Amino acid sequence: MGTVLKNGTIITAADCCQADLRLEGETVAAIGRGLEQAGDRVLNVDGCYLLPGGIDPHTHFDLPAGEFSTADDFASGTAAAVVGGTTTIIDFATQNKGETLTGALADWHAKAAAKCCADYGFHMAITDWHPAVRREMADMVASGVTSFKLYMAYKNVLQADDSAIFGALKRSREVGALVSLHCENGDVVAALVQEALDQGHTAPRYHSLSRPAAVEREAVSRAVALAEMAGAALYVVHLSTGAGLAEVAAARSRGVEVYAETCPQYLLLDDSAYLTEDFSGAKYVMSPPLRKREDQTALWNGLRAGTLDTVATDHCSFNYSGQKDRGYYDFSKIPNGAPGVEHRMGLLYTYGVLTGRISLNQYVALTSTNAARLFGLFPRKGTIAVGSDADIVVWDPQRSFGITAAGQTQRVDYTPYEGIRQTGAARHVFLRGRQIVENGKLAENDRTGQFLRRKPFWGRGERICSQ
Amino acid sequence: MGTVLKNGTIITAADCCQADLRLEGETVAAIGRGLEQAGDRVLNVDGCYLLPGGIDPHTHFDLPAGEFSTADDFASGTAAAVVGGTTTIIDFATQNKGETLTGALADWHAKAAAKCCADYGFHMAITDWHPAVRREMADMVASGVTSFKLYMAYKNVLQADDSAIFGALKRSREVGALVSLHCENGDVVAALVQEALDQGHTAPRYHSLSRPAAVEREAVSRAVALAEMAGAALYVVHLSTGAGLAEVAAARSRGVEVYAETCPQYLLLDDSAYLTEDFSGAKYVMSPPLRKREDQTALWNGLRAGTLDTVATDHCSFNYSGQKDRGYYDFSKIPNGAPGVEHRMGLLYTYGVLTGRISLNQYVALTSTNAARLFGLFPRKGTIAVGSDADIVVWDPQRSFGITAAGQTQRVDYTPYEGIRQTGAARHVFLRGRQIVENGKLAENDRTGQFLRRKPFWGRGERICSQ
Amino acid sequence: MGTVLKNGTIITAADCCQADLRLEGETVAAIGRGLEQAGDRVLNVDGCYLLPGGIDPHTHFDLPAGEFSTADDFASGTAAAVVGGTTTIIDFATQNKGETLTGALADWHAKAAAKCCADYGFHMAITDWHPAVRREMADMVASGVTSFKLYMAYKNVLQADDSAIFGALKRSREVGALVSLHCENGDVVAALVQEALDQGHTAPRYHSLSRPAAVEREAVSRAVALAEMAGAALYVVHLSTGAGLAEVAAARSRGVEVYAETCPQYLLLDDSAYLTEDFSGAKYVMSPPLRKREDQTALWNGLRAGTLDTVATDHCSFNYSGQKDRGYYDFSKIPNGAPGVEHRMGLLYTYGVLTGRISLNQYVALTSTNAARLFGLFPRKGTIAVGSDADIVVWDPQRSFGITAAGQTQRVDYTPYEGIRQTGAARHVFLRGRQIVENGKLAENDRTGQFLRRKPFWGRGERICSQ
Amino acid sequence: MGTVLKNGTIITAADCCQADLRLEGETVAAIGRGLEQAGDRVLNVDGCYLLPGGIDPHTHFDLPAGEFSTADDFASGTAAAVVGGTTTIIDFATQNKGETLTGALADWHAKAAAKCCADYGFHMAITDWHPAVRREMADMVASGVTSFKLYMAYKNVLQADDSAIFGALKRSREVGALVSLHCENGDVVAALVQEALDQGHTAPRYHSLSRPAAVEREAVSRAVALAEMAGAALYVVHLSTGAGLAEVAAARSRGVEVYAETCPQYLLLDDSAYLTEDFSGAKYVMSPPLRKREDQTALWNGLRAGTLDTVATDHCSFNYSGQKDRGYYDFSKIPNGAPGVEHRMGLLYTYGVLTGRISLNQYVALTSTNAARLFGLFPRKGTIAVGSDADIVVWDPQRSFGITAAGQTQRVDYTPYEGIRQTGAARHVFLRGRQIVENGKLAENDRTGQFLRRKPFWGRGERICSQ
Repeated sequence: MGTVLKNGTIITAADCCQADLRLEGETVAAIGRGLEQAGDRVLNVDGCYLLPGGIDPHTHFDLPAGEFSTADDFASGTAAAVVGGTTTIIDFATQNKGETLTGALADWHAKAAAKCCADYGFHMAITDWHPAVRREMADMVASGVTSFKLYMAYKNVLQADDSAIFGALKRSREVGALVSLHCENGDVVAALVQEALDQGHTAPRYHSLSRPAAVEREAVSRAVALAEMAGAALYVVHLSTGAGLAEVAAARSRGVEVYAETCPQYLLLDDSAYLTEDFSGAKYVMSPPLRKREDQTALWNGLRAGTLDTVATDHCSFNYSGQKDRGYYDFSKIPNGAPGVEHRMGLLYTYGVLTGRISLNQYVALTSTNAARLFGLFPRKGTIAVGSDADIVVWDPQRSFGITAAGQTQRVDYTPYEGIRQTGAARHVFLRGRQIVENGKLAENDRTGQFLRRKPFWGRGERICSQ
Repeated sequence: MGTVLKNGTIITAADCCQADLRLEGETVAAIGRGLEQAGDRVLNVDGCYLLPGGIDPHTHFDLPAGEFSTADDFASGTAAAVVGGTTTIIDFATQNKGETLTGALADWHAKAAAKCCADYGFHMAITDWHPAVRREMADMVASGVTSFKLYMAYKNVLQADDSAIFGALKRSREVGALVSLHCENGDVVAALVQEALDQGHTAPRYHSLSRPAAVEREAVSRAVALAEMAGAALYVVHLSTGAGLAEVAAARSRGVEVYAETCPQYLLLDDSAYLTEDFSGAKYVMSPPLRKREDQTALWNGLRAGTLDTVATDHCSFNYSGQKDRGYYDFSKIPNGAPGVEHRMGLLYTYGVLTGRISLNQYVALTSTNAARLFGLFPRKGTIAVGSDADIVVWDPQRSFGITAAGQTQRVDYTPYEGIRQTGAARHVFLRGRQIVENGKLAENDRTGQFLRRKPFWGRGERICSQ
Repeated sequence: MGTVLKNGTIITAADCCQADLRLEGETVAAIGRGLEQAGDRVLNVDGCYLLPGGIDPHTHFDLPAGEFSTADDFASGTAAAVVGGTTTIIDFATQNKGETLTGALADWHAKAAAKCCADYGFHMAITDWHPAVRREMADMVASGVTSFKLYMAYKNVLQADDSAIFGALKRSREVGALVSLHCENGDVVAALVQEALDQGHTAPRYHSLSRPAAVEREAVSRAVALAEMAGAALYVVHLSTGAGLAEVAAARSRGVEVYAETCPQYLLLDDSAYLTEDFSGAKYVMSPPLRKREDQTALWNGLRAGTLDTVATDHCSFNYSGQKDRGYYDFSKIPNGAPGVEHRMGLLYTYGVLTGRISLNQYVALTSTNAARLFGLFPRKGTIAVGSDADIVVWDPQRSFGITAAGQTQRVDYTPYEGIRQTGAARHVFLRGRQIVENGKLAENDRTGQFLRRKPFWGRGERICSQ
Repeated sequence: MGTVLKNGTIITAADCCQADLRLEGETVAAIGRGLEQAGDRVLNVDGCYLLPGGIDPHTHFDLPAGEFSTADDFASGTAAAVVGGTTTIIDFATQNKGETLTGALADWHAKAAAKCCADYGFHMAITDWHPAVRREMADMVASGVTSFKLYMAYKNVLQADDSAIFGALKRSREVGALVSLHCENGDVVAALVQEALDQGHTAPRYHSLSRPAAVEREAVSRAVALAEMAGAALYVVHLSTGAGLAEVAAARSRGVEVYAETCPQYLLLDDSAYLTEDFSGAKYVMSPPLRKREDQTALWNGLRAGTLDTVATDHCSFNYSGQKDRGYYDFSKIPNGAPGVEHRMGLLYTYGVLTGRISLNQYVALTSTNAARLFGLFPRKGTIAVGSDADIVVWDPQRSFGITAAGQTQRVDYTPYEGIRQTGAARHVFLRGRQIVENGKLAENDRTGQFLRRKPFWGRGERICSQ
């Protein structure tokens, strides 16, 4: 009563192995040849890769943004994820000012419950630092929320000062958590936005111009220094610039435990997208903004050299019509973000693996394994190994199509990758042994995604081999 | 008629998995539970790690050095290797001046044939560059020798000039080979050695003083630049300094395909070893020499950050009595090198894994997987995967002992690690399915090590997943 | 009716010239031979150097610190300055919270008026940033106060946030001013101080331990980034670490207009001073604290290479008995600062020039010329040239003595340089043509120091040659 | 019987001073007001700057290049120099293979004797290193030739290996000399040139393509390391890339005594000059070649930041017609070099000072003072000070003209600056008190330029103030 995937090539962060795979119950039972037992379903996956289900550690589903919320909620967002080959997402529960972390977590549990196609976890975003929050961090870890996020940007809204960041970093070591930071200097951004508006500059391109690369470089440099002085590890989200990456690399060389994430948009798109005459630049209004081509090169080098650990999406979708256009007359009112969870696996395969920039093993590490390790899901998630969850993507390297808003599962009216070609796609997807995508089609009404209580993070001092 | 290793924890560069392992013939047949078939031998390895057999890509066995040769030949050297958990070594066939590569390879085949406990391959060391050698590089690749080495040191003996290095790098791209370089500026070393001798400085410490860190840093910088301009990959052997490592890291950041190796002696010993009153500093006379404590820290950071790819030994053993003492009155006459092939796996486990500096997965990558990938042996060697060679080390994490010359298998009268404690050791070792070490004891007279015809190296543009 | 200084060697930032110097009225009239006119006083200065009067751009005289003020006021402080060869000081007028800049300036004018032996100017320290202050910056420039300072340290007291710093930098370009920054991350310092106190650590050494080098490095990195994004110049005060200096050097290489100052205490003393059993480490409690010996080396390299522009003192004297001891039971209550204005010229000569680390020309540039240029006093001050103020130090390279508290002019009960030998000293000092020191003795009751209305600063775009 | 220059503004590396200047005999007698003595010639220079005569430390006059010599000899070359405001040049005496340094020096003395409008010195270029040459270096210093040059490029012709360079650097400390290096990796250049020719690429642009920036970066890195290990100072000639400059800056930060020179062509021209369809790219065939615009920016930053010490020309003129065209069918046969000695002062003034990139003081330092200091001519040359040689340029900031081959004094049929505008020019020029240019016109037949016996160089350990 298991399932045997026959004749595929199993890819992990280390291996490429032609063997059969037997799933039983929710986990992987065996790897080898001739594994079928009586009653097993046998699926021939000849010519396909078997990948560990993707993990996107950075999504924003059902996120309130003033009068409305993001276009995708947990239902549509996780549906898009699994169709694209991602079986686990980690979203952000966000503390509002004056709120407890416990309260915030409850709110976000309510948003996600019973709707998800993918397994999911939460990071906790701290926006109101005080002693009680410091204490509550331990409760979060006990609840399976073992990572926290603070913002160096969004002045007067989400922005944390250095005292809060330093305090959270110090505390993270005590409770077994990993702190991630949004690295942009919010004070400077606020001043440059105001300056642009004062000068009558309202078009989307001014979003980009008011967040120069140095805004990120400075913040990464500071973030790394705070972690170094706190003796804590750090995870930098959505790194977008070569200059920021150089700060990360320098920190590692001197022994700081810093991890970094980038996103497909920073690898594939650039700031020429803002230079249109019409308002369509708004589709790319996100923070940090798209950068220069040289930054792309630097980021690809970072993926290959191992300086970057993960490729996430920062999926945060707003409809161009009805949402993005709230900023038609004022770029600072354009809701920030863009969709992407559906295409992450395909884009990185097409433009990373097929171009030779990264190997298939690196591809698995970047899209799944490393996130699992950092965020307390390994080896349950992030690999194909005996005993691990049977989250398996049967990847068809032959399928090729043009990405379009019309053809996507994401519930948003555009995609920043419109017209871009994807080669390779998820043919079948298994979540804990249950097939949720068949021949590219989502098993509708299968909403069995579970909340993942993640393990604590004790840093690299911990032997990464405990089950 | 296979072997089942039950209840161990399988470690690869990516995974830590509690499962059984079934070997059949020379390869791994299955990973899972309940794998025994009729006639199988079952070995309980409860409490042990199952590691891919170690690969030491840098040994010098039976190397002539004037009137004598190294203390270890291929018989004793590979015996020591397998006892320590290393099942594959790559030695250096060295072209003499005026000799063809083909001739040199034949000589080295003769030295190794029918004597080896471990599987083995050869790099080809080029010391006499000219157009015919350039052409012959293709023959070497066809013969399974897919890596070459040139020396930037040893003026008037082995040293290649930049034209030769640049030519070999250019050629390596055409034939599918990887060039490695010994990075020390031989012109400066020669001048400083002469200067020391002119001043009457004859003690072993002057070996170290005549090879300052800048000698390595300069050579690494140059090596990297030559590779960059040739558009070729590069492998830096036995990196010993933080300054050299910084050059490697900088090169990677700008996209140069450079790999680097270090050795246990540079991670664990330092140049205070030369400061004895007696001649015992001669035991540590090797090139490059031992460095400062800060360099150790930098190298450990490099291992963790992934800037260093492999830990090899540069095993090159000379007896303290009768060989090293040829330089009693003149440090420049001390034969260069030290033993180490036996203790590499244990030292890196004890001082890397158990101290938390690297994870078990990194340990496997550094001692086996990465060398297999770079030198054309993957996935046959370097991992535990279905279809791979059944080179398996059953690693007992409980065993602990003090390293001594008296207790070693290496056929040399000292060890640089005398008295240093090793925790964790190879209990059983399998080479292509055949057990060659049992309870720490070598199966004497089992000399079934084979020459490995290695695959070409096409650089990172190649998808690292072809079997 | 002039004065002719005969047979000396005139030193400027560029020249070393054996010639006579004729002063007339308040300025230099001629350089040459045979310049005496009828009625001239002729002073033979054979064997002496004639230096431009020193400029110390960083003093704190009559600074309130809780219940008391610094030991030195403008009378004693400027007396010590001129005895040591410094004829101009620039002190800090500090805005209190809620106060206007104009009000603050008036207060500080009152403190200094009619008391000074040296000419003096003020920087304006902004501690309460808001739109009115922004506007008032122009008034300050009009009043001859053409430089501002903000603090990145001293949380909740003097500390400015990035918005204020960025705003002040932007504004500085409009009004023609130079912004200087105290670069230490005050949030981290506050947290580390609290942590130390929470752990019962009260001794002076914890002052140092709660301000690690990374506190400065981070702040310099941020300061430089803020200036770069504001398109403004920046002056970093009292740089103390090699890491901070590296940030300055990197910024210059990419074209940022950043200047930096260090102080004799960071060049000559180190943090071993805090390791005493008794309370005497309190004498060295200053911010930033004393650093490592490697930092000294880096700073000397920076002086020589031109990365550091000025050597100031941050003179801020508190008596060991009765003032420093307020922190006997709590290091955080020790008033921060140490004396130095008297010995700056002598220490840099002895340990910079006489050791060959810097040339005599660099010595003049670092102690006088560069400060004059940056702070709008050149060419009136900072050089010996026809038409410039006749602020002349007749430097006797033969005089040598041990520095002691007992022998100093500074009105404070200790010196951090107790027992350190000074070779070379001011024999005679002229301020605008008037001799105020004769044979090392101060002309008592000569309090003719004037307030200097400084010229605006327009950055390097300005041709530095307008009189 | 002196000359008084009235109402000018005297500019030195430190000062800008409105004063009169009195010259008497060959030197400066006084600076002040009302200096005229009976019999003096008085010249009103109202509105002009008085600059120290320019020093071009890098020219090649009368240099043999196969069948012919450079277009300019010492007569035409120095005539062009003084017309442009340069009163001292330092040319290169070059040892031929097998020749003594003494012989080479004699040859070059013969070329220059009694022909020069400017004072002149020689560096000695060593191309054949052996023990006798090592000894002869002391003779050169005794003869007033206190600087040496070696080439890292021009394989098999001028190129020195690292042993020679290291030996010369070591020796330079003993004899009191400064070694300069041409930093390009000649082995790589030779290989790339051969590769281009093998592929049938013969156009001038392949000169540039066969000398990529990394050729220079590598060589500078190596040069600096050799100097560091030799404990010697180093002068890098004609630095052309930002990458090379970064190596210089890094070396200075760690305390290496390295100086660097660039040239107007690298500041003002770029490699688009090679992209013509016709052969005119040959005009710009020089080594190193013209670079990218980013390199220009980096070099200007280096001038401002003080990382670059001098602006020389590497004047080496070949006629486009009859000389350059020897390489019409093979770029590697185009004689390397371009003219420039005439326009150095004007170009740096126009594009450095008038654009605000450097100050007038820096201009003087870069064109005169720093070269005088480094090459043993200070304070006799390089400044305007009492007792210094009266080499004075009366610089008219109003004069403006377009540079053309037709209008130049240089005896060559083109200029790389054709059509470029120069603002500011030498109106009058005095050499040791004697006027050799009047209203822009050369005093023909005035060939009173003298050979300058230069002082030894003892490095920064020497107090730069001995006369």
